[in-house]
Amino acid sequence: MKVTMKIDIRKFIEANQLRTLKSILEDQDAATIIDMIDELPVEEKLIVFRLLPKELAAQVFSELDPTDQTKLLSLFKEERVRDILNYMDPDDRTDLFDELPANVVKKLLEYLSPEERKRAIELLNYPPNSAGRLMTPEFVDLKEHLTVEEALEHVRKTGKDKETVYVLFVIDKTRKLKGTVELKDLIFADPGIKISEIMDPDPLYVHTTDDQEEVARFMSDHDLIAVPVVDSEQRLVGVITIDDIVDIIEEEATEDIQKMANMGVSYESYFHTKTTRFFKNRVFWLIALLIFESFSGVIITKYQDFLRTFAVLAAFIPTMIATGGNAATQTSALIIRAMATGEIELRDWWRVLLKELWVSVLLGASLAVVMMVRAHFTSPVLDVTLGVSCALLVMVVFSGVTGALLPFFARLLKIDPAFMAGPVVATIMDVMGVAIYFYVVSMFIK
Amino acid sequence: MKVTMKIDIRKFIEANQLRTLKSILEDQDAATIIDMIDELPVEEKLIVFRLLPKELAAQVFSELDPTDQTKLLSLFKEERVRDILNYMDPDDRTDLFDELPANVVKKLLEYLSPEERKRAIELLNYPPNSAGRLMTPEFVDLKEHLTVEEALEHVRKTGKDKETVYVLFVIDKTRKLKGTVELKDLIFADPGIKISEIMDPDPLYVHTTDDQEEVARFMSDHDLIAVPVVDSEQRLVGVITIDDIVDIIEEEATEDIQKMANMGVSYESYFHTKTTRFFKNRVFWLIALLIFESFSGVIITKYQDFLRTFAVLAAFIPTMIATGGNAATQTSALIIRAMATGEIELRDWWRVLLKELWVSVLLGASLAVVMMVRAHFTSPVLDVTLGVSCALLVMVVFSGVTGALLPFFARLLKIDPAFMAGPVVATIMDVMGVAIYFYVVSMFIK
Repeated sequence: MKVTMKIDIRKFIEANQLRTLKSILEDQDAATIIDMIDELPVEEKLIVFRLLPKELAAQVFSELDPTDQTKLLSLFKEERVRDILNYMDPDDRTDLFDELPANVVKKLLEYLSPEERKRAIELLNYPPNSAGRLMTPEFVDLKEHLTVEEALEHVRKTGKDKETVYVLFVIDKTRKLKGTVELKDLIFADPGIKISEIMDPDPLYVHTTDDQEEVARFMSDHDLIAVPVVDSEQRLVGVITIDDIVDIIEEEATEDIQKMANMGVSYESYFHTKTTRFFKNRVFWLIALLIFESFSGVIITKYQDFLRTFAVLAAFIPTMIATGGNAATQTSALIIRAMATGEIELRDWWRVLLKELWVSVLLGASLAVVMMVRAHFTSPVLDVTLGVSCALLVMVVFSGVTGALLPFFARLLKIDPAFMAGPVVATIMDVMGVAIYFYVVSMFIK
Repeated sequence: MKVTMKIDIRKFIEANQLRTLKSILEDQDAATIIDMIDELPVEEKLIVFRLLPKELAAQVFSELDPTDQTKLLSLFKEERVRDILNYMDPDDRTDLFDELPANVVKKLLEYLSPEERKRAIELLNYPPNSAGRLMTPEFVDLKEHLTVEEALEHVRKTGKDKETVYVLFVIDKTRKLKGTVELKDLIFADPGIKISEIMDPDPLYVHTTDDQEEVARFMSDHDLIAVPVVDSEQRLVGVITIDDIVDIIEEEATEDIQKMANMGVSYESYFHTKTTRFFKNRVFWLIALLIFESFSGVIITKYQDFLRTFAVLAAFIPTMIATGGNAATQTSALIIRAMATGEIELRDWWRVLLKELWVSVLLGASLAVVMMVRAHFTSPVLDVTLGVSCALLVMVVFSGVTGALLPFFARLLKIDPAFMAGPVVATIMDVMGVAIYFYVVSMFIK
């Protein structure tokens, strides 16, 4: 991999060699600059922004963390705010506005040129996480009757500051989407031929209200580098490009992993998230799980006398419930991910259940054998050994089934299945596990 | 979203209307056909393949699951195997060969044309998961001295069956990479100008041996739609396009989630993975965790007499260890993901530890209060209430620290940090939790 130059910006600032720094920065791309300034305090970021040309400044600004963006906006001079906001891509701007309080957005909108303001307000009106929020209204449109040569001329004239010119969109007088043409098709085609003859008259598209995750899956399945976005009347209103989709896919995976660890989702990067925010993200789940877990205590208290007589049985409680939790976690994680990538649908519950039941029986039998050996060392009484192993077998089968069904159950209730993982599953299995354990074991040991 | 036509292929096959089916299929793209045939038995897939034109057949075949690919290859007539293999993109072909036994690959290589065979063997020589395996050797190369007009003519002549023409690569006589030009730059530039004047003379590139995950991150950070791949002597040998990267990012997230649930990784889709495979993927971890978990039993056995006297204390064991496991799971999942996306590096361990310590103290204090109320209901003895709450506070702080450090520890040992999640963390916390619980509680209750 090409190692991008790592410059210690601080040294230049301390030595006051700002002119040299400026000429170095101007040669970098936005991603490299982000890399260089990411760990600087916001005051030094401010200095760097002063040195950047307007367009590059807007690009770098777009890639910053929302907390940094907000701080910088309050430190910038009005002129700089105006430049950056107007030069930002409309989709990145919507992203920023989403993070800010409504009164700040209102003020910032005033800095935009009338045309950009109109666009910004339109984009903000689409529902959160929809294709409308993600798209940019900057695209090149063509008319069917143009020749390839005229179309290329049109691309040359209007395409320079557009997000993409590799996919061009053919619309009619009412702006309805009629087809798409790839730029390469224009290059390969005879210059005199009509656009209507080479366009794809039945192009793939998405609606403004479609969820961004579905759009990401759609583009990835069809290997699209750009997809047109239409409104409810099939009028072309924007385009979503593949680079935004790559970010969505990463974000959604991060979101799923955070949900699977049962915590609130944080869209900011680790070091930019405040401690109190992390606290808030986690404390609700931990308390809820602790309270639910109390049921296991209620069950154990019920068996207190039994336990006083056979105190050795307490030694198996952690292993019993932990193994159940582990088996259920494996199953649910597998199914949650397959649901997220679109492979498993709600209607597949029966096929999944059968498969997991079978796997669980195999796992339960293997683990019961291991447990028998282990229990023999703790207590060589046959009743205990048999009771504990048998309880484990029941437990693992039960865990597999529960781990398989919980994500479906969540989906049925319109809850994100990702929550039915890790801690939630482990806690449910703890409570069920204690019940199963004492019930099965008390049948063997009188 | 555009609803792609869902045709019941079976009906056409049963009614023997193969000619109609053929004309329908010819109009679809590969992704739509995959959608339609995905759940058909392999014999019916075979019929569909007979109806598809060569190139489309190769595309559809590339998108199938490895198990289906292997089965179909054994059912196809020799002629069909020959066509499909020769028409497949070289990178997809490498992917397929990776899945097959060496002797099968050897036989299949004979079906390739001499030129394709040479390419296939070259690609197979790169290490698994490297940029070399992922790239395609099909790209358009230009020479510096060409004019824009000549370059466009060259693209027209040689670009038709290339994976991308949107990024063009400038090389010298020794095939060393000199620069890149985007197709749009050719369109916008004056036809008479030299390529050397408009190319990016310092382009971003990757090496054949770079890991695919790093390449994915690199392309996504720099918003590249294609990246050149060079060998150790900076000679251009291939190109990686963004559509392959989208797949890699999804695959890596799936892999991480499976590892975080502590199971073997399966690259096949859920329904195509055999039950025995799932069993093998999970059983090792479950047994290992069960054995490790036994230590908790050993500790409890040590406190057997104490427990006989204060049997009520058994009621808190599950809550205690579960809360520790939950808190540690949250922390480790957060850090594992931030490591995977490149935000947290090994050297950040100290900053992470401080932050997590602080969050854990806040969480521990809040949970101790909740626990005090709960313990009061189970046993209104002050010593028990205080002892249990205090043990929980120590437990949660300890969990936060452990959850934060385990991923760093794994990385230090060159183990994928993703394994330090869910079940592993929960099991470690179980054993530590039992020890902490009895130690702290026995200080309060004599």
